[in-house]
Amino acid sequence: MEKRYGIIVALDLTSREKAMMVALEIQDLVDAIKVGYPLVLSSGISVVRDLSKISPVICDFKIADIPNTNSIIARLAKENRASGIIVHGFTGEDSIRAVVEAFSPGDVFSVVEMTHPGALEFIQPISMEIARKSYNSGVRGFIVPGTRPERIALYRKNFPGMLLLAPGIGAQGGEAKRAFENGADYIIVGRSIYESENPRREVENIIDSIQ
Amino acid sequence: MEKRYGIIVALDLTSREKAMMVALEIQDLVDAIKVGYPLVLSSGISVVRDLSKISPVICDFKIADIPNTNSIIARLAKENRASGIIVHGFTGEDSIRAVVEAFSPGDVFSVVEMTHPGALEFIQPISMEIARKSYNSGVRGFIVPGTRPERIALYRKNFPGMLLLAPGIGAQGGEAKRAFENGADYIIVGRSIYESENPRREVENIIDSIQ
Repeated sequence: MEKRYGIIVALDLTSREKAMMVALEIQDLVDAIKVGYPLVLSSGISVVRDLSKISPVICDFKIADIPNTNSIIARLAKENRASGIIVHGFTGEDSIRAVVEAFSPGDVFSVVEMTHPGALEFIQPISMEIARKSYNSGVRGFIVPGTRPERIALYRKNFPGMLLLAPGIGAQGGEAKRAFENGADYIIVGRSIYESENPRREVENIIDSIQ
Repeated sequence: MEKRYGIIVALDLTSREKAMMVALEIQDLVDAIKVGYPLVLSSGISVVRDLSKISPVICDFKIADIPNTNSIIARLAKENRASGIIVHGFTGEDSIRAVVEAFSPGDVFSVVEMTHPGALEFIQPISMEIARKSYNSGVRGFIVPGTRPERIALYRKNFPGMLLLAPGIGAQGGEAKRAFENGADYIIVGRSIYESENPRREVENIIDSIQ
């Protein structure tokens, strides 16, 4: 993933046409496209292959199954030209490793903490251990909460070599500039781009705000 | 879900034809079909609709995202005629509730513990709290480890009203009879049925073993 401005667009849409349109409109301004199950379930996994012709695609499948199933899911993403994939660190080392092995040489990112209130119940209290286990399992980076900059700083300090991807910027309340200042390598922005009447202008505004 | 023998077949295949064939062959012996991302990603989500004409379908999507995304995934499963859906309890109450609300009046099952070794690292130590939170969020039942009967007994004792579904029977080492004796309402069997040369005979053998 070559870095321009450090912006990844999350296309959590259920319309393939809309997703393709937004992707084309901003392709020279973003580093990657993140797609999840809303788009893949409604459009079929071939949408990953189609979008990969526009920008590198990260499949945000938050894979959280037993190792055997994780491998199959990772392979399907890879066969459809995904460059990156997201696994839930919570499910433990063997499950993470299964994705790292099946997806190689692509980039695997592990969710170590999430942005919603419920993540404070079970995930945040053990998130540093999840990060440690993910690191040991060979992932390329972590998904960290863009809504909590002080947490990004903590991962930055403890894991200098890991790529940090911060979702939750925009609609969920996270600020692009603060995420970068606290150590994020990439920010992930969804709704505020694809729900904008002018997605390109919205990305340009984000770029202005971080420069 | 009407109960016959308490057997749910997990079709973790990547071939729609094979899945349909196995489902038809054993439809009068099983209570439901569990499908996950291996089949849905390779065949498209319409496979859920097709299988639902044969037996009730439980979508094992182990949903583990923020509430907004969880809702969208649950709605897509429902629109495709799923009768049940599986959510990961560890993502917290708001994420579980989002699925319960979006999937209503279908049955939501929460993963409170898993069968693989990695589940001992982060999930098992807090699994009873995950179960409590899931119960409070309005789920119909729990996914419990068929490979650890003593754990099934513990959930049975603490949550008398919850349906307990136990995967990991067969290829992963769990025994059908022991799972039921310890309080499982349904067992989930995958590979040992669909990898069998005679899936029907395999299900009959399981029925014999539990009677």
